[in-house]
Amino acid sequence: IISFFFLYLLHYRWIEAKNSRGEVGLVPEDYIEINQAQPFTSGGNAAPLDLSFFDSHMPTPASTAQVSHRDNGNNPWTVFDNNASGGFSNNWAAQPEGTETGKTSSNAWPSGGHGHPQAYQGPGAEDDEWDEEWDDVKSSGGYAESEAGEGGAINRGGAHGSSMKISRNNNTHNKDVIQFIGEVGPVWAYPDYQLDCVVADPKKGSKLYGLKSYIEYQVTPTTTNKPVNHRYKHFDWLYERLLEKFGSAIPIPCLPDKQVAGRFEDEFIKMRMERLQGWMTRMCRHPVISSSEVFQLFLSYKDEKDWKMGKRKAEKDETVGVMVFSTIEPEGLPDLDLIEVEQKCDQFNRFTRAMDDGVKDLLTIGNEHWKRCTGPLPKEYQRIGKAFQNLSSVFTSSGYEGEAALTDALTAAGKTYEEIAQMVAEQPKKDLHFLMETNNEYKGLLGCFPDTVGVHKAAIEKVKEADKLVAAGKITPSDKTTMSKRASTMSYSLQAEMNHFHSNRIYDYNRVMQQYLEQQVKFYEMIADKLRHAHSQFTTM
Amino acid sequence: IISFFFLYLLHYRWIEAKNSRGEVGLVPEDYIEINQAQPFTSGGNAAPLDLSFFDSHMPTPASTAQVSHRDNGNNPWTVFDNNASGGFSNNWAAQPEGTETGKTSSNAWPSGGHGHPQAYQGPGAEDDEWDEEWDDVKSSGGYAESEAGEGGAINRGGAHGSSMKISRNNNTHNKDVIQFIGEVGPVWAYPDYQLDCVVADPKKGSKLYGLKSYIEYQVTPTTTNKPVNHRYKHFDWLYERLLEKFGSAIPIPCLPDKQVAGRFEDEFIKMRMERLQGWMTRMCRHPVISSSEVFQLFLSYKDEKDWKMGKRKAEKDETVGVMVFSTIEPEGLPDLDLIEVEQKCDQFNRFTRAMDDGVKDLLTIGNEHWKRCTGPLPKEYQRIGKAFQNLSSVFTSSGYEGEAALTDALTAAGKTYEEIAQMVAEQPKKDLHFLMETNNEYKGLLGCFPDTVGVHKAAIEKVKEADKLVAAGKITPSDKTTMSKRASTMSYSLQAEMNHFHSNRIYDYNRVMQQYLEQQVKFYEMIADKLRHAHSQFTTM
Repeated sequence: IISFFFLYLLHYRWIEAKNSRGEVGLVPEDYIEINQAQPFTSGGNAAPLDLSFFDSHMPTPASTAQVSHRDNGNNPWTVFDNNASGGFSNNWAAQPEGTETGKTSSNAWPSGGHGHPQAYQGPGAEDDEWDEEWDDVKSSGGYAESEAGEGGAINRGGAHGSSMKISRNNNTHNKDVIQFIGEVGPVWAYPDYQLDCVVADPKKGSKLYGLKSYIEYQVTPTTTNKPVNHRYKHFDWLYERLLEKFGSAIPIPCLPDKQVAGRFEDEFIKMRMERLQGWMTRMCRHPVISSSEVFQLFLSYKDEKDWKMGKRKAEKDETVGVMVFSTIEPEGLPDLDLIEVEQKCDQFNRFTRAMDDGVKDLLTIGNEHWKRCTGPLPKEYQRIGKAFQNLSSVFTSSGYEGEAALTDALTAAGKTYEEIAQMVAEQPKKDLHFLMETNNEYKGLLGCFPDTVGVHKAAIEKVKEADKLVAAGKITPSDKTTMSKRASTMSYSLQAEMNHFHSNRIYDYNRVMQQYLEQQVKFYEMIADKLRHAHSQFTTM
Repeated sequence: IISFFFLYLLHYRWIEAKNSRGEVGLVPEDYIEINQAQPFTSGGNAAPLDLSFFDSHMPTPASTAQVSHRDNGNNPWTVFDNNASGGFSNNWAAQPEGTETGKTSSNAWPSGGHGHPQAYQGPGAEDDEWDEEWDDVKSSGGYAESEAGEGGAINRGGAHGSSMKISRNNNTHNKDVIQFIGEVGPVWAYPDYQLDCVVADPKKGSKLYGLKSYIEYQVTPTTTNKPVNHRYKHFDWLYERLLEKFGSAIPIPCLPDKQVAGRFEDEFIKMRMERLQGWMTRMCRHPVISSSEVFQLFLSYKDEKDWKMGKRKAEKDETVGVMVFSTIEPEGLPDLDLIEVEQKCDQFNRFTRAMDDGVKDLLTIGNEHWKRCTGPLPKEYQRIGKAFQNLSSVFTSSGYEGEAALTDALTAAGKTYEEIAQMVAEQPKKDLHFLMETNNEYKGLLGCFPDTVGVHKAAIEKVKEADKLVAAGKITPSDKTTMSKRASTMSYSLQAEMNHFHSNRIYDYNRVMQQYLEQQVKFYEMIADKLRHAHSQFTTM
């Protein structure tokens, strides 16, 4: 994928073409000339340029996926460990995974799904027959066997060989247009109607005469209002497709964690559903993702057959990895200045790092607060309540007349503090929970950005090298212009994504803070009410 | 004092008499016949009765004072240690101090102030000349030396020798009348006007050209509204007098702790003043104490000369220890049934123990709550506040337009949580403090009851023995009747004191709970208000 990325920057021009099966679509113009004069397109090994730069430093969607799977921020934060965040920090460092990918795929072509667990793909691997929601062993390799040969004579080193087939992007509507709005810079073209969906009604299903069971969620898009059913593994399949296709341009936050033990427990199902809802809503809100064919398939397939056919088609989609930039058009926007692009990148990098720190800080504090609110604090209120009630029953034993007013009031006060104890313990679920969930979601999202930004930084570096290449006669000045133009498109895309992120962030934090504070107000008001009532039962003697 | 107590039960009839100096007052009738036919009045050693029973088991006001000084419940509860309550528990057990007192005073007469640190008493011991507010070494022994011989030929083993002098109780107004009120049983005769006083305006004074300094408090009784000045050591002098005089009948709670280090610090002075106020208010509320000459002297002496003369007189008061019962009259009340008396005693004993446990429990819990409210909890709110503000400043660095509304609101929310942190930390001073102070006061008060109840239990035991004594011809049936009558008076007195305690307790706990809950309501309302305001600054996008 690395070298291919370089090729993308330099060479592709997209032309409409027809393949041997008569399918029409856009194909890279240069690719068709693959065996002509281009000195470094026949294979990575023969390339006169030092491609190892990209090989070792450029993150790939594959490595993104791997890193994200290890620490995707979706660990339930109730067991969040502050010290365990080291895995995440690695995202900011040079990524050894990239190196590995480069080694196993020395070929210059993008490897498509290489490095991903290739579950649910190969024919004969009937995914509904295994109960595990994730199984690398069973499913890996299926793709290579089943797809080999279909692409024709292209060497198997890179799945990109299959991009010789006509791309599914056979009309310009699939180009995601970047508009320019003065205030915030480049933004995606947002649809008039904001797609959303409801994930609800988890149901236990079973098959093989009850031998295998699973949970199925009902997903209802607001567009059709027609529910479709999906298991967690279908969401995961969608995630893989989106990551593969859009991962270079758009950070795709991981799904909530897979879990084997206890996954049929109500509490877990509820939590997973809530997080799947959060993930889906975020995906729905993204104009590029929500309008993509694979996402639309997921939300509104007509029947099983439609779903299965759509899946196959999506799995064969070639416009993946950096190829996605070919479908993006900065409509009417001038080429960007390299320095400016770099500055934007750096600024965004700094911002996401800082926000990542801030979010993690808030999560750590929130987690401690959660523990206190559900542990020692209510226990203390309960003990205060018990102490009042105990004193009241001691007073009752005095044998002194006219004590009942005090002891009744004291008992009521004691019970009030026991009620407060319960309120305190239950409150975090009503407010802190959402604050934590939102920040947890952002932690996951922010964890994807280093990779996304890395793709752009690498592109900029490559364009910077272009001058030398021109001087050495390795590329023409016109080639250099092409590279700049493409880097410019990537940069517009990143900026549009940054702006999308920012506007969503503002919306999300406004909403979650409002919700948090509203619940906090209610909480303290209710405590005050309860205490006011307890107070009224005491009489001045 | 032990054997004297027995004598009191059996023999005293009070007659008006005139002493060698022409002073007139009540003296025990039997005492005058001391060298006549009574077989066990000439000295403990020769007594045919086993007086060691009382010697070893009966608490004396002296031992009360000693025990109370060790663990009087006035240790500032901010350093209250749950495990350190062992000292207090001793109060409920047989008291080794009593044994010791019995040994050193084998003589049958009460030793008056024996066992007390006899500070401020002897002539030539000009108490204003030493700065220490408590000094056993300097002041002890002064009394024995200066008073010896004054009492005539009476052997020095017991200071009661000096009771040969005419008692100061030379009119029946000084008899504290117990009234009977159907509902609650015997009660003290309460004055129409409830005395109170204000302890305020602590001022640093000095003497010996600034060599010695001290704090003087202004004490203003509500009766005269004329302030008098008192140093802590004057309060302590008053405490000693009250303990000596009333300790057998009325539990005299200890003063707030003496303290040498830091006693000029504002915080300490304020706390001490508050506790002196609490102590004085409690003393004012007691009809027997507040009407006593020594208490009136303390509150309303005219000038230095008046004060010094009054002090001398009070120090020479002979109606101390169990003698105080001679000044108590259960007006128109029938003699009590012994069984009933014993049951009342036991019930009250159980009650005070149970309340003591309850109060200590509340203090332990309150102390923990105090620590949490002033330690980790506000720190957590502060961290939440800082995290919000930090996130806000990260957001500000985004370079994205139209962020100001969110960042301003987020900063405000952060500051609100910092304010809440401060409120949380300061709140205990506004509510928990008074709840703790009241319970601390009651802890001290309850610690005095085992001794007071012990005096009565011992008296009952002795009266029970009377049958045997009559059978053995050691006392007459009429003597037995006298003993019963006196034990009855003591019991009425205890019951009046119990009822005084109960009614005060009901008043105090009503008041403190009202205050606590009122402040708690205000606290939670204020938090809700602050959060409501913070909430209003977020805008729905």
